[in-house]
Amino acid sequence: MNINYNDNKINLSIPDGTYDILGDEMRFREYVISQIRSVYERFGFMPQSTPIIEKACVFKGHHGEGEKLIFNLIDKNNTKLVLRYDLTVPLARIINMHPDIPMPYKRYQLSTSYRDDTVDKSHLREFTQCDADIVGTSNCASDAEIILMAYNVLKAINIEEFTLMLNHRLILRGMAYEVGITTEEQFTSFQCVLDNNLQDREKMSKNLCDNLRFIGIDKQSIDKVVYIIYSFSNNFFSQSIFQILDKIKTNFGHQSLIVKGVNEVEKIISLLPDEVLGKIHFNLGLARGANYYTGVIFEAVVNNMEMGSVLGGGRYDNLIKNVGNRHYPAVGFAIGLDRVLTVLNDLHAVELNKVFPSKLLVACENQNDFQKTFHLINRIRNYIDVDYYYNEYNTDILNYIKRNHYKCMLVICKNSTFKLINYSNDKSFVDKVVDILESITPFVSIESEDRL
Amino acid sequence: MNINYNDNKINLSIPDGTYDILGDEMRFREYVISQIRSVYERFGFMPQSTPIIEKACVFKGHHGEGEKLIFNLIDKNNTKLVLRYDLTVPLARIINMHPDIPMPYKRYQLSTSYRDDTVDKSHLREFTQCDADIVGTSNCASDAEIILMAYNVLKAINIEEFTLMLNHRLILRGMAYEVGITTEEQFTSFQCVLDNNLQDREKMSKNLCDNLRFIGIDKQSIDKVVYIIYSFSNNFFSQSIFQILDKIKTNFGHQSLIVKGVNEVEKIISLLPDEVLGKIHFNLGLARGANYYTGVIFEAVVNNMEMGSVLGGGRYDNLIKNVGNRHYPAVGFAIGLDRVLTVLNDLHAVELNKVFPSKLLVACENQNDFQKTFHLINRIRNYIDVDYYYNEYNTDILNYIKRNHYKCMLVICKNSTFKLINYSNDKSFVDKVVDILESITPFVSIESEDRL
Repeated sequence: MNINYNDNKINLSIPDGTYDILGDEMRFREYVISQIRSVYERFGFMPQSTPIIEKACVFKGHHGEGEKLIFNLIDKNNTKLVLRYDLTVPLARIINMHPDIPMPYKRYQLSTSYRDDTVDKSHLREFTQCDADIVGTSNCASDAEIILMAYNVLKAINIEEFTLMLNHRLILRGMAYEVGITTEEQFTSFQCVLDNNLQDREKMSKNLCDNLRFIGIDKQSIDKVVYIIYSFSNNFFSQSIFQILDKIKTNFGHQSLIVKGVNEVEKIISLLPDEVLGKIHFNLGLARGANYYTGVIFEAVVNNMEMGSVLGGGRYDNLIKNVGNRHYPAVGFAIGLDRVLTVLNDLHAVELNKVFPSKLLVACENQNDFQKTFHLINRIRNYIDVDYYYNEYNTDILNYIKRNHYKCMLVICKNSTFKLINYSNDKSFVDKVVDILESITPFVSIESEDRL
Repeated sequence: MNINYNDNKINLSIPDGTYDILGDEMRFREYVISQIRSVYERFGFMPQSTPIIEKACVFKGHHGEGEKLIFNLIDKNNTKLVLRYDLTVPLARIINMHPDIPMPYKRYQLSTSYRDDTVDKSHLREFTQCDADIVGTSNCASDAEIILMAYNVLKAINIEEFTLMLNHRLILRGMAYEVGITTEEQFTSFQCVLDNNLQDREKMSKNLCDNLRFIGIDKQSIDKVVYIIYSFSNNFFSQSIFQILDKIKTNFGHQSLIVKGVNEVEKIISLLPDEVLGKIHFNLGLARGANYYTGVIFEAVVNNMEMGSVLGGGRYDNLIKNVGNRHYPAVGFAIGLDRVLTVLNDLHAVELNKVFPSKLLVACENQNDFQKTFHLINRIRNYIDVDYYYNEYNTDILNYIKRNHYKCMLVICKNSTFKLINYSNDKSFVDKVVDILESITPFVSIESEDRL
């Protein structure tokens, strides 16, 4: 991003892991956001916004190791502030601060969060998440609705080949307990290893050894963990999720955490339409990093792509109480917008003509004549979006047309006639422009030309 | 914003001068933003986004006294960062960093900026601006278009009673020169006094004395400044802007800065439609704080309201060169969204049924029956946005309906029939719901009820 100039001015750049988003790319981004938003609205969610600067105390103690990545600042009254780390803790804060909100509270929030992290393709320091959460109900219909929304969002943005990985924290805890992982510290260590090695049994086994042995878990138990995870996950075998869940209950019927977890998963998936079920893979290897999850957890990964999950979430029934003192169950998920856009770019999944709406560019051959042109454009704008090219009418305009995706240009010629130039196959758009011109400027002479 | 709990949890709050925006208020905000955006799009502007964290060096030296209000932070690589102070300097940075952008570059940006300032009703520390700028042309049609957009934005959001105050930095500099204000320091001091005392001649006179006398301007000259400002501003007398401009040229024809400024203003206003001209008041008392303005400057104030300007802008031909080394003229303006929303609330200017779209709420009397309900809702969502009320069907639901502005509720009764309850006068919406239900569930029995 650095550009070196030949003079003594500063080298302009932006912080690593942040981006400028211009024209095309921003239109594309806004189109995807509008699709996501429309799914959230379809499910009856309300928008919400919270400050990017928050008091530091609000964010302490909810993200384990992640807390080291929080950006700190101090205002001129010496108040310790942070740039928000996520949108979930602010939601918990709001629920505690506004006891008058009628429950259930279903909100979505589309915003940036900040982590002072090491930067790579899928880790930015300023990143955009599209969160949707339901607070105030433990009805499993709300878990199902969140998963259904995740499915619908991916469909709405034309991602077809994806897998919804599903697990339940109670089943995971029960399994961990079965092999001797009983403390919070051991469980966190176990979680990290699972999440980072979802697809790779060898690696998981090795990393589990490294991580669990020195906190007292023996080799035999570790092998048992790995065996269980692989046997009871239907993304590695051709078993249906119902078969897997049955098998878990048969084998671990003595473990109440596991039984409770399986029952909840069964209830949730019984509500999902077949097309959603077809995408779900039960995966005991899924753990998800955040400490606050308590129930169902899930992630979506795009098939055959080297990239982490594009969305993820789950039930977190204690976070709100931990941030304040009100006790409300909650379930939700977040879409990583930046990753989704990378995927869409790689897949060429979105038709660009949906993103770049037809607009008319107007240029004037005779710059001295622009007062009349200006008033004409003003009238055309009652019917159609119009951009006026202020500069001299020369070959530079071709670059301008290309970069801004204009489909049609109206040239006001020196002899006061009009020339319409069509740069697309969209004949109907050009016809519409002719109609508009004829209706507002009688006795106009229009010459039309295709330059596809 | 502090809520005191009876236990030992932290007192939750957000930083002064920031806000949580929930449900209703957010919908209202988004509606206003969509109106503003549609005006920008109608004029052919493209959206843009820049990071909220910027390198500190980018923001040094462009805001005079304002620089003290910049929020500073340091990342873990010890890079000095700031929260962006405005959206104009990032635009100047972008133009310098992307030499391939075809000119003119017309962009809009709707985002928050940050100032560690003293907080009151119209000064927030996190505030939203809607900027539109045209870079790369000094054609006065671009100045006219920016003013026309400002006018159109206010009309689009139903603010009818407003005044567009207009001035030109060259005229202002020429006038200042006439009374002996010749240095940059004197001019800045002069500017501050004008801007803060636009409406009040007595106060302006007194403050000018205080500010200018100790830097060597005598009482007689100060009185002359105040006299000139009041004689040559058409918001205090019933003269047209053309008469005022003529009079200025007659009186100050010897001053080339003034003549140049007047000529530019004349060219710009000759392009504006009559309804826009009717709102313009030429006001020599308008100065605008930012150091970087070089040409026409303007502000909109809402008539009969105790509040600063809701939008303002002007031409700044040197800023881009001062930030990097590329020389491009530019003109633009920014809307203070938070102030606009305050005005709209006070005026009750926006019809709420435009803001809260019709949605259907579905509730189920028998919670055990919700699997069928869930699948039904899914089918209804192909036609209409639906919110499902997960909780027990009891009197709490009335609060939920009210707060979320639902116009109609579908109750799935214990005997599996449907009851439609209408909470609005929108009979056609209820009819539409009946049609949808009949089309997707044959042999349905629907009972309809009005509770307006």
